[in-house]
Amino acid sequence: MKNICLLGATGSIGESCCDVLRGHKEKFHLSAFSFHKNVEKARAIIQEFSPQYVSCGDEESKERLSKEFPKITFGVGSHGLVEAATLEEVDVVLTAVSGAVGFTPTLQAIEKKKTIALANKETLVMAGKWIMEAARKQNVKILPVDSEHSAIFQALQGQDRTSLRKLVITASGGSFRDYTREELEHVTVEQALNHPNWSMGKKITIDSSTMMNKGLEVIEAHWLFDVPYENIEVVLHRESIVHSMVAFHDGSYLAQLGASDMREPILFALGFPERLEMKNEKPFDLTEIGKLHFEKMDEERFPMLRLAFECGKKGGSFPTVYNAANEIAANAFLDGKIRYLEIEKYVAFACLQHKEKEDLTLEDVIEIDKRTRNFVRKEIEYAQSQENEMRR
Amino acid sequence: MKNICLLGATGSIGESCCDVLRGHKEKFHLSAFSFHKNVEKARAIIQEFSPQYVSCGDEESKERLSKEFPKITFGVGSHGLVEAATLEEVDVVLTAVSGAVGFTPTLQAIEKKKTIALANKETLVMAGKWIMEAARKQNVKILPVDSEHSAIFQALQGQDRTSLRKLVITASGGSFRDYTREELEHVTVEQALNHPNWSMGKKITIDSSTMMNKGLEVIEAHWLFDVPYENIEVVLHRESIVHSMVAFHDGSYLAQLGASDMREPILFALGFPERLEMKNEKPFDLTEIGKLHFEKMDEERFPMLRLAFECGKKGGSFPTVYNAANEIAANAFLDGKIRYLEIEKYVAFACLQHKEKEDLTLEDVIEIDKRTRNFVRKEIEYAQSQENEMRR
Repeated sequence: MKNICLLGATGSIGESCCDVLRGHKEKFHLSAFSFHKNVEKARAIIQEFSPQYVSCGDEESKERLSKEFPKITFGVGSHGLVEAATLEEVDVVLTAVSGAVGFTPTLQAIEKKKTIALANKETLVMAGKWIMEAARKQNVKILPVDSEHSAIFQALQGQDRTSLRKLVITASGGSFRDYTREELEHVTVEQALNHPNWSMGKKITIDSSTMMNKGLEVIEAHWLFDVPYENIEVVLHRESIVHSMVAFHDGSYLAQLGASDMREPILFALGFPERLEMKNEKPFDLTEIGKLHFEKMDEERFPMLRLAFECGKKGGSFPTVYNAANEIAANAFLDGKIRYLEIEKYVAFACLQHKEKEDLTLEDVIEIDKRTRNFVRKEIEYAQSQENEMRR
Repeated sequence: MKNICLLGATGSIGESCCDVLRGHKEKFHLSAFSFHKNVEKARAIIQEFSPQYVSCGDEESKERLSKEFPKITFGVGSHGLVEAATLEEVDVVLTAVSGAVGFTPTLQAIEKKKTIALANKETLVMAGKWIMEAARKQNVKILPVDSEHSAIFQALQGQDRTSLRKLVITASGGSFRDYTREELEHVTVEQALNHPNWSMGKKITIDSSTMMNKGLEVIEAHWLFDVPYENIEVVLHRESIVHSMVAFHDGSYLAQLGASDMREPILFALGFPERLEMKNEKPFDLTEIGKLHFEKMDEERFPMLRLAFECGKKGGSFPTVYNAANEIAANAFLDGKIRYLEIEKYVAFACLQHKEKEDLTLEDVIEIDKRTRNFVRKEIEYAQSQENEMRR
């Protein structure tokens, strides 16, 4: 029996994870979870899985739920996330929160020797070096939950790693893959949230359309698989059936494929090294799909992808800035504060303005992350005030 | 340094193997080889690789070459094949001869604990049970060289075998995949030898077009991977880029893909467990290929595939009959003795007429193989004499 901590239980990945746990009650017990705002969903999860610990997004929901479930320990906020992730009995922490908020609980869980099932790519992008160093030091496994990285991880099992030539990450192209840059000028939040293949959270859906998500994945893959950026390639694959590939120096490729179902990589990470059976499987028949398409990525159409490689190669805190700027800008777009194409501009500008510190420490990185967020927030506020003035 | 014996050195696989050995002289030494008729090619191989032993197809070439290369030991015929395959210093035997003639040297090599790199599928089809039993007993590895089986073997490395759901073997469809059965009535040998994706020997090219080759591969896969026929599927994939796939019970597929280059599976088998680098690699770019197609196999269009599953499920010596009848019929077509669609009829008829023996022994199987060949030969002769009489 593996004891699971699920950070971000009421989101899209959280929901898929609950379904996986439901299918294998003999293998998994949900010991702890966190949620942000959705008290109704949190209550249902408590009733179904009887965890020992629950971390709430705010004091109010903590108080409400504490009264209803007096035997359960409740926490709140970022402190609650760490408490959940480091709970004594927990074996595996699935980090399915969105954004850099996942960083501290992940690092703390590693220090407590918990296996990490990583669905929060921002953590590795922000501070991959320190996370991977801590994992090596504590001899902790970091198992990918992103479908692309799970595909690569599955394909690399039992293979001669010295013969690895490159990783080929597939990209669906997101909601706007067939739009020209001109057509992107006036797209709405609603249009951006309409992903062709995957049903996911809001931020990651926006990130998919800007190709920021793929950029974050490239940096995540660099850290997870210890592969130089020169050996990571992104290929446009509209169907999202081939979840990613690895290529070896004998010309052979191994690809992992299947339905667009996040439960599969979650089940693989939680069950690892066992491959458990999927319950209520999504039907999948390659002959019914019929055709798979593969195209080169257009770097000019998707400048955020090129920027990811640039930031990755520069290393240090450039990926931190890339990620932090995007978190603020993508959310500002979701909140109606900026236009779609401005997301890219704020990210590019933040990276351009960034000056690297010498002898970078983890504290520096955390500080740079904060500073970048403030910088982009202020830039957005300033632009808004300018616009308002012009309207008067 | 691995010492290699190459049975069938002057054929298509033999040539690819020589190129692989040429690329890795620090890893492989060609200790022994056999050839059938092509003395010129055999001489060139001797000059390049300086083997210790060479088995010739006939006495005449043996005598010629013995005089030219007095330091090399020469053998002849089926006895020579066994001597080559069981030579003291040989580590790996690559069986690239065509047809059931590969059976005895393969079995003898297993008894001498040589690793087998199997490119001769007829051996496993004819007597899979005995070959696999001998390999288990001697703790000998049988490494597949067929591109489909190499793909499956590569994809299964390091995977949890208890979670395997099915093997998905891809089929290009052969030279006539878009012909209706009516259009097949009058096809010529020349048309049949024009394979769309792979450049191979004559018999296997005919077998590809009749889907006999895929049928033999299904039976070979059953034995190599110990998978019941119910869990083997054949899918039409025109591009021959995905060489085959495995599916697991979590809904995940692993596929091996790459260029249509037989050197890849040969290099993988000879190098195993190392994955060595391919020299003079064929260029391969999935985004240039652009589209991959997958279609259901039409069992009525390709009755030999259905018959393979039937014979496989019946087991015993049914696959022996299926293979033996085809060897005679396919060669009769190549010799202009029968029409294309008659190949299928002779194979189907031989399987229909076959009565299984109780407590089948290996000696029985060898006898049944011979008897089937004679039966089909006589049927063909009889039909020819009838036709000649009608013409008079």
